[in-house]
Amino acid sequence: MSPSDANPVNVKQYFADKVVIINEKLTTLLPEPSNRLREAMRYAVLNGGKRFRPVLAIATSEMLNGDIQEVLPPACALEFIHCYSLVHDDLPCMDNDDLRRGRPTTHKQFDEATALLAGNALISLAFEVVSKSAQSSSLPEIQKINIIQELAVASGMNGMVGGQVADLESEGQPIDETRLAYIHSHKTGALIRAAVLMGAYASNATEEQIILLRSYAEKIGLLFQVTDDILDIEGNEAQRGKKIGGDLEHDKATYPKIHGMARAKELVQELMQGCRDDLSMFSDRAKVLVALSDYVGNRKI
Amino acid sequence: MSPSDANPVNVKQYFADKVVIINEKLTTLLPEPSNRLREAMRYAVLNGGKRFRPVLAIATSEMLNGDIQEVLPPACALEFIHCYSLVHDDLPCMDNDDLRRGRPTTHKQFDEATALLAGNALISLAFEVVSKSAQSSSLPEIQKINIIQELAVASGMNGMVGGQVADLESEGQPIDETRLAYIHSHKTGALIRAAVLMGAYASNATEEQIILLRSYAEKIGLLFQVTDDILDIEGNEAQRGKKIGGDLEHDKATYPKIHGMARAKELVQELMQGCRDDLSMFSDRAKVLVALSDYVGNRKI
Repeated sequence: MSPSDANPVNVKQYFADKVVIINEKLTTLLPEPSNRLREAMRYAVLNGGKRFRPVLAIATSEMLNGDIQEVLPPACALEFIHCYSLVHDDLPCMDNDDLRRGRPTTHKQFDEATALLAGNALISLAFEVVSKSAQSSSLPEIQKINIIQELAVASGMNGMVGGQVADLESEGQPIDETRLAYIHSHKTGALIRAAVLMGAYASNATEEQIILLRSYAEKIGLLFQVTDDILDIEGNEAQRGKKIGGDLEHDKATYPKIHGMARAKELVQELMQGCRDDLSMFSDRAKVLVALSDYVGNRKI
Repeated sequence: MSPSDANPVNVKQYFADKVVIINEKLTTLLPEPSNRLREAMRYAVLNGGKRFRPVLAIATSEMLNGDIQEVLPPACALEFIHCYSLVHDDLPCMDNDDLRRGRPTTHKQFDEATALLAGNALISLAFEVVSKSAQSSSLPEIQKINIIQELAVASGMNGMVGGQVADLESEGQPIDETRLAYIHSHKTGALIRAAVLMGAYASNATEEQIILLRSYAEKIGLLFQVTDDILDIEGNEAQRGKKIGGDLEHDKATYPKIHGMARAKELVQELMQGCRDDLSMFSDRAKVLVALSDYVGNRKI
């Protein structure tokens, strides 16, 4: 029996509960809308996003009996990084998108320069949040520094930005499995992995716990991207709030494109099982994390 | 007698010596040029820049008998932030400049998307550098966190980016002294202030020392901007390696424009004296910092 069978988790309710807390904290951490830059920062973040990364960080912390006050700031910092990446991804020199989640993208609502700078300001804000949190935290010093470092590595050239570049370079090019795996594990995977790890550091996790969670984090990160690729072909445009077929239009490398849809869906099943296996040592305490990886694997939006 | 009279400092030689050390460290901290993103990151940083901010951080540390190994990583992190800001400032949606220091700007040498992402990667790298340095540092925890926080605040919406936005908004608008002071103290001043403060934190400075250095840092930051404004009108294009009159062309708010050239030059003298006064408690040990503020006040490039 897998841990999740014992006492089924209502994932939708779990998300709904956590999203309230996360949005409250994000609103507190964001500046008042006293000028155009700050309005744009709020617009980019307070957008009805799913808050998947912060929820994952919080769930990891809860499993390890962490303090919600320790994990909330790093969780929100991750969301700031995620939101900045969307603002910059939508810019004309990148994907040139006019709509995101049914609303004008930040540069359409404001202007390009403001969107660029709002994105940059969100990066700095993310690091301000984790460093301020470190000042009042009672965690061991090593864990505080680990949190900041994970955020920096995951968001940079060896993480998200590295993946964005590889993705751009792959447009219209022949692409092999190795390169696709690199793009997937970096562009989206890095921040999702960071969510689990930062949640673990913020709960003063042991080295053994970190090793297991790192493996889980790798898999749920890839799971997220593969399902995203599948939904870009088979998803419902209205439900997703973004255009279907965008990857094909940009001639982007995706799992279904390289391996075929059947193999992509098989991989989803393998990854979901792998997530369960990684968490088996945590027994019933892992039920939310198991439910979250299952949710990602089965998601329709 | 001011501290600098006792044993005159050869500022040019001081810069030359430190720039060697700084460039070596920057090169070590930058990634190998193994792809387009990493090439662009190196291009943006290894550009013959003056390294004013890292030199200032090191000089502050030397005055306080700090360890060069503690101050070099934060000093380089500041330079990464400075360089990213130039890359993004040059983009078509911002100042749309083709040349910087006589070379094509990063988006001209590569492309816009690569320049955007290289800038973003430099921000993350800056925070990676200070957090990695914190792991091996023997400084008190509070000082390590102060360094990271100063970098985050100085680079963000209450620092450099805040100033960039106010500057953009002021183009072609009537502008008063308060707003001009805000732009100056944020756009350029924030990182220069941070250089002094991060140098102080990296030397485990006392609270009393921080208060004096904060005052000096404010003044040298403003001094840098006012002289920049003056040189944009009266400077030598070949020496400066950038176009003269750019501020006027963009109808930007500058000190000479608001207050007249005579008052701008008077202010330079007042700020240089203020810097000396702030440092008087450090007596002869302050001679390099005094020489640096004098150098900024008297600079021709």
